Amino acid sequence: MDTAPKLVSENRCFGGKVGFYTHQSQTCKGKMRFSVYLPPQASERRLPVVYFLSGLTCNEENFMAKSGAQQFAAKYGLMLVAPDTSPRDTGIPGEDDEWDLGTGAGFYVDATVQPWAAHYQMYSYIVEELSSIIAEYFPIDIERQGIFGHSMGGHGALICALRNPDLYKSVSAFAPITAPIHSPWGQKAFTHYLGSDPESWKLYDASELVLSIGYKRPILIDQGTDDPFLEKEQLLPLIFAQACEKAGVALTLRLQPEYNHSYYFIASFIEDHIRYHWEALRN
Amino acid sequence: MDTAPKLVSENRCFGGKVGFYTHQSQTCKGKMRFSVYLPPQASERRLPVVYFLSGLTCNEENFMAKSGAQQFAAKYGLMLVAPDTSPRDTGIPGEDDEWDLGTGAGFYVDATVQPWAAHYQMYSYIVEELSSIIAEYFPIDIERQGIFGHSMGGHGALICALRNPDLYKSVSAFAPITAPIHSPWGQKAFTHYLGSDPESWKLYDASELVLSIGYKRPILIDQGTDDPFLEKEQLLPLIFAQACEKAGVALTLRLQPEYNHSYYFIASFIEDHIRYHWEALRN
Repeated sequence: MDTAPKLVSENRCFGGKVGFYTHQSQTCKGKMRFSVYLPPQASERRLPVVYFLSGLTCNEENFMAKSGAQQFAAKYGLMLVAPDTSPRDTGIPGEDDEWDLGTGAGFYVDATVQPWAAHYQMYSYIVEELSSIIAEYFPIDIERQGIFGHSMGGHGALICALRNPDLYKSVSAFAPITAPIHSPWGQKAFTHYLGSDPESWKLYDASELVLSIGYKRPILIDQGTDDPFLEKEQLLPLIFAQACEKAGVALTLRLQPEYNHSYYFIASFIEDHIRYHWEALRN
Repeated sequence: MDTAPKLVSENRCFGGKVGFYTHQSQTCKGKMRFSVYLPPQASERRLPVVYFLSGLTCNEENFMAKSGAQQFAAKYGLMLVAPDTSPRDTGIPGEDDEWDLGTGAGFYVDATVQPWAAHYQMYSYIVEELSSIIAEYFPIDIERQGIFGHSMGGHGALICALRNPDLYKSVSAFAPITAPIHSPWGQKAFTHYLGSDPESWKLYDASELVLSIGYKRPILIDQGTDDPFLEKEQLLPLIFAQACEKAGVALTLRLQPEYNHSYYFIASFIEDHIRYHWEALRN
């Protein structure tokens, strides 16, 4: 099987290129999609790379189209990779029926319950297969990789970084779901993907992971105070902040007054996050 | 009839606010939509405003979501307004059948042919009704207004500015349709909206207007060299450049190597355009 990513479309952007790719995933047993921003410096040397994991309903395009990250990735010389948020068109019954389960809602876990388990292996897909593909086909420095994300993808970035400190050397998030075992979104997804035993969920809960395995690097989180999902207790940043304090993890949690959950919020602070990763990965 | 715009949603962005509005349009005889970016300075004083007219298939959201303009509007203290590109849900038969005619394709003309003429009055809507609403309900300095746009909206910005030099004091465009009477898109739209006499089209053709009425201010245009609509002779910037040269108009036409027609192109050069308008409108 040909595992090389295929370029679907390409757009020059801030002197570099935004490319959209598809590839046959062995992990998810089907076609997967991702986007890459190659800054101008990519033609000269191997670069640090930062992965961005998107939120519910998103695909590999939202971040590239709306975050404004390319301007700063070009300024600092970082490559960006934005994977899709789930497998698609798997044939699993009901995969497209609900916006917070199935298509667009992979939740960055390895499903253990059928029918999802046959395709929904997003955790292994991100940390193993996609990492390998990016290292093989793009000019990255594998020692300098970071990860960040938004909402469900902020959860994904945190659990990937916490569990793989040798792979990802920096992590940040926008409005992440930081305690999914206590959030309605997380409980629904984990029940369907992992089964009804909450013990099995803890491997995918950032607040639990901070307490159980700790983390030696700093973490940056931005959270809008007018985010409707904050009030609905989907995000629960204070549970994560308490866990970090208990575990001695250096968390910077910035509450941004009046910002909501949208990409207008992300765009407003993307420069800070890109610079944060660059400073962690520059050497 | 209540003509006040109604706020549909609001998003804090770069310290200001992106707001989406609807209102009952007397010109278009139905509900119209637009978006506004109020930078932080809007709470302190009346500001210059720049209108952005979008291209085919777009609505009032694309520019706000994808251009990255707010960062620079906040930096320089400019208000931004992005109207929708046509009336919608008018009941005109076939209004949604074609992507380059009807909904999303108003072409910034006052239609004279039925059934379009009943609602498709986008030229008067932009230069008269929307201008009046913005002046009445937002903190702008009416002496400092500019206009820019993309593709069909670049055409719109040019014709609005050329025909209303007292209203708009600055103009620029991304990949504009600069000679619509010679472009397939323009010919199709003008035939349906204005009828088969090309003489009536010249009031809406930037290249013809430059020759017939001239223009005393400089014009900035960015055009990607890999724009597929350049090769298809939809945009025809050289016809406009020749007209400007003949008429003594100070056109800066920048050909941007390898850029295409997308918002990745617009985002890459939006700072230059915002600064261009700011420099023209600052005093």
